Amino acid sequence: MTTEADEKALRYRRAQSVTAAEEITEKENKVRRSQADKPCHKPRDSLFSWSSEFANFTGLVNWGFLMLSIGGVRLCLENFLNSAFVATLVLPMSIGDGNRFPSIGPSAFSVVPAVLSLLIERGIAVHIIPEKIGITLQISNILFVVILPVVVLNMRGEDFSFVGITTVCMIYLILFLKLWSYCQTNHWCRTTLKGKCVKNKLRRQSLSAPNWNDLVNAEHEQTYEEDKNGKAAAAGLVKYPDNLQLKDLFYFLLAPTLCYELNFPRTARIRKRFVVKRLLEVIFGVNLVLALFQQWMIPSVTNSVETFTTMDPVRITERLLKLAIPNHLLWLCFFYLSFHSFLNLMGELLQFADRNFYNDWWNANNISVFWSTWNMPVHRWAVRHVYIPITEMGYSKFVASIVVFFISAFFHEYLVSVPLQMFRIWAFLGMMAQPPLSVISRVAEVKLGPRWGNMIVWSSLILGQPLAIMMYYHDYALLHFKPQQ
Amino acid sequence: MTTEADEKALRYRRAQSVTAAEEITEKENKVRRSQADKPCHKPRDSLFSWSSEFANFTGLVNWGFLMLSIGGVRLCLENFLNSAFVATLVLPMSIGDGNRFPSIGPSAFSVVPAVLSLLIERGIAVHIIPEKIGITLQISNILFVVILPVVVLNMRGEDFSFVGITTVCMIYLILFLKLWSYCQTNHWCRTTLKGKCVKNKLRRQSLSAPNWNDLVNAEHEQTYEEDKNGKAAAAGLVKYPDNLQLKDLFYFLLAPTLCYELNFPRTARIRKRFVVKRLLEVIFGVNLVLALFQQWMIPSVTNSVETFTTMDPVRITERLLKLAIPNHLLWLCFFYLSFHSFLNLMGELLQFADRNFYNDWWNANNISVFWSTWNMPVHRWAVRHVYIPITEMGYSKFVASIVVFFISAFFHEYLVSVPLQMFRIWAFLGMMAQPPLSVISRVAEVKLGPRWGNMIVWSSLILGQPLAIMMYYHDYALLHFKPQQ
Repeated sequence: MTTEADEKALRYRRAQSVTAAEEITEKENKVRRSQADKPCHKPRDSLFSWSSEFANFTGLVNWGFLMLSIGGVRLCLENFLNSAFVATLVLPMSIGDGNRFPSIGPSAFSVVPAVLSLLIERGIAVHIIPEKIGITLQISNILFVVILPVVVLNMRGEDFSFVGITTVCMIYLILFLKLWSYCQTNHWCRTTLKGKCVKNKLRRQSLSAPNWNDLVNAEHEQTYEEDKNGKAAAAGLVKYPDNLQLKDLFYFLLAPTLCYELNFPRTARIRKRFVVKRLLEVIFGVNLVLALFQQWMIPSVTNSVETFTTMDPVRITERLLKLAIPNHLLWLCFFYLSFHSFLNLMGELLQFADRNFYNDWWNANNISVFWSTWNMPVHRWAVRHVYIPITEMGYSKFVASIVVFFISAFFHEYLVSVPLQMFRIWAFLGMMAQPPLSVISRVAEVKLGPRWGNMIVWSSLILGQPLAIMMYYHDYALLHFKPQQ
Repeated sequence: MTTEADEKALRYRRAQSVTAAEEITEKENKVRRSQADKPCHKPRDSLFSWSSEFANFTGLVNWGFLMLSIGGVRLCLENFLNSAFVATLVLPMSIGDGNRFPSIGPSAFSVVPAVLSLLIERGIAVHIIPEKIGITLQISNILFVVILPVVVLNMRGEDFSFVGITTVCMIYLILFLKLWSYCQTNHWCRTTLKGKCVKNKLRRQSLSAPNWNDLVNAEHEQTYEEDKNGKAAAAGLVKYPDNLQLKDLFYFLLAPTLCYELNFPRTARIRKRFVVKRLLEVIFGVNLVLALFQQWMIPSVTNSVETFTTMDPVRITERLLKLAIPNHLLWLCFFYLSFHSFLNLMGELLQFADRNFYNDWWNANNISVFWSTWNMPVHRWAVRHVYIPITEMGYSKFVASIVVFFISAFFHEYLVSVPLQMFRIWAFLGMMAQPPLSVISRVAEVKLGPRWGNMIVWSSLILGQPLAIMMYYHDYALLHFKPQQ
């Protein structure tokens, strides 16, 4: 469908633009070239012109990487010159509140619900806990995980720094998604196992009253099942309920994925150079992002609060655009660090072979494509554990999309509102603006060409985020600071 | 040669990195996929990992364009809010010195040597001026063009702003290259015409003492020549000396090329939307670049002078890196504005069809490739008017390269030293550093892979320029300002 739209758009663009190369006929050119003045020009377009169809910009990735490195090195040097060893302390200082680290407690506590989930699964597997009660317990446990940070924050919120509490919320949100996947996958395995038992029973019944057709089928099935089990065992695959081990659970909790499965694809060895590179990226990058945030973003945001109170549209636009560029660059750094450096580091250390943490969202020609390519762990989780189960329950694809969408919007809001201790709905509204934007970008892609669709995706990223940030900061400042005039 | 090196590097890289996808055998994977836990992972690399071989980053060009637009719009808004109409005055204020515009006089005077060159050419064509004297006159005229700015600046240098005198130098340098091309191309045409006359004479001689072989050859040649002339006339091509017209000369002087030819390829019509887009880019872009230069570069450079005097290597590195990022971004903006927006605008207005003003230097895997792709007008000029003539004179390719290189280095120095009125050799040395750097990048490309070559090209761009700028500014500040401590 996308390629069809692409082609259509391409045809449209070709019809619109008169490519320079088409202007002069081949024959005329040949005569011209034979003249005595040694002609060296021929009709052609510049590479940046849309009509040139040129598309190789690989070098720009190296450029981005170099710019990031240079920025990081410079910042470290500056910190080293101004006050030794400050740079290495940026991260712990942001998470901890001075010398105490109150967010370590709640983070470490996340092990408890995880182990609890394993115990319940084991209980169900060995028939100590009946299936239905087990499922109820699991759901309560998972809900407890997502509510805990809210409760902790309400009780001793003043102890935490902003970065600290955001980290805690993120850990618990990831735990929520992982445990959901863990329980559901184990449930699938159980259902399949039960199905086999039922089949075996049926087979035994059919044996007592022999019917040749049934017998042959049953035997065939048995051989098939045994064959499959034999193959699985030969390949060294773990089978339910042998997977219900602490080691297996912790591997899943640390692995860079949100989707549980019994046998993750593994790599043969840990590439040491790869680990060192990713580790350096994480260390330098996180310091760079935090320092830029403190030195560039916070002043911009602070200066803008007053402007937002005046409601002057020209001034607000100017402030918004001023904020947009640093915010967007920070987001890009954050994306690279989290989705490439950090997740690849974890993957390499755990010998986890599936490194598809992001697709090429930078080429996304409409907003739906962007949402399904930029964050692959969450996208894959949503498809496997929400979208497909809902469609399998008989609901339409549309209903399934809406449910996925609302869950996503809720958690975006959760990640902003809980750390700020301020329940607004700007993030939720931002997510709600995505479907109409998606329609607009789709129309632009088809009518004006894929480049315009891509432009709309980038614009919504560059301009949408600072808008939401300003809304929150405006409300936050009104709540916490008194005007100084 | 490049592709061979590419392949070699690829093989090396493949041998080095153990691609995750190769870790698990196909069969094993198939068995795993048939399990009840609905596995969704498979071994694969992240797109940014070098082993993934992914190369589609077209979206990043749209991103760059959007970031530039947003920056430009914001700056205009800020200027509009702070003091109305300042933004539109940035350019003339920088060129002029307050209300007077002393650089307009010398710029307008550039018409004189151009017309003089045409008159000399005409004189030679109609045999008023003997060929040898004509060539001497042309060479004197061309040398006069390149010396004039130096003389003017020494006489009334204090009248000019820095941007103003740089513009004047640029205009005269371009005029120098264009007139060189104009004279040399006309000389080629003349030589060919003379060759024909000699042939005709020979033919006539051979007719008086008939030799059938000669006769047939001569007739064949004549038909060929006549056929060629007929074809050229049919295609509406101008022939020497009909091209020696004021209109033709001025078209060449305004056209976005440095290589003269009698019949430039032309487009059929002017695309209005294209002109408007490029015009907007030039207007917004130039203001953006100048404002960024004043607000971002000048403070950085000014702050750094003292550090350079201390000769502390750590501090100098820190300053250099701080300067590197804004300088590099400005250079990128400058590149896009000059080589894409401005030259395409001129090309469209003049219906000039050859828009190959730059090749994909961002993918250059070694420094030689960069130098032969980033500035195509100069590169094409150097190949057509220096490199090929020298090799045709019997010298080796190496000698020809060295000559091209020295001319390039001289004019880099010219463009910096003359406006600064300070004859240092930093720009010349910077150019001289290119051949060794080229060897290093070539070695890196072959031994470590093309990406490393590309990284070295980018690094030399990002770090080399600010180094040269600091050297000049340091010397300039020492000359013109007294230390304030």
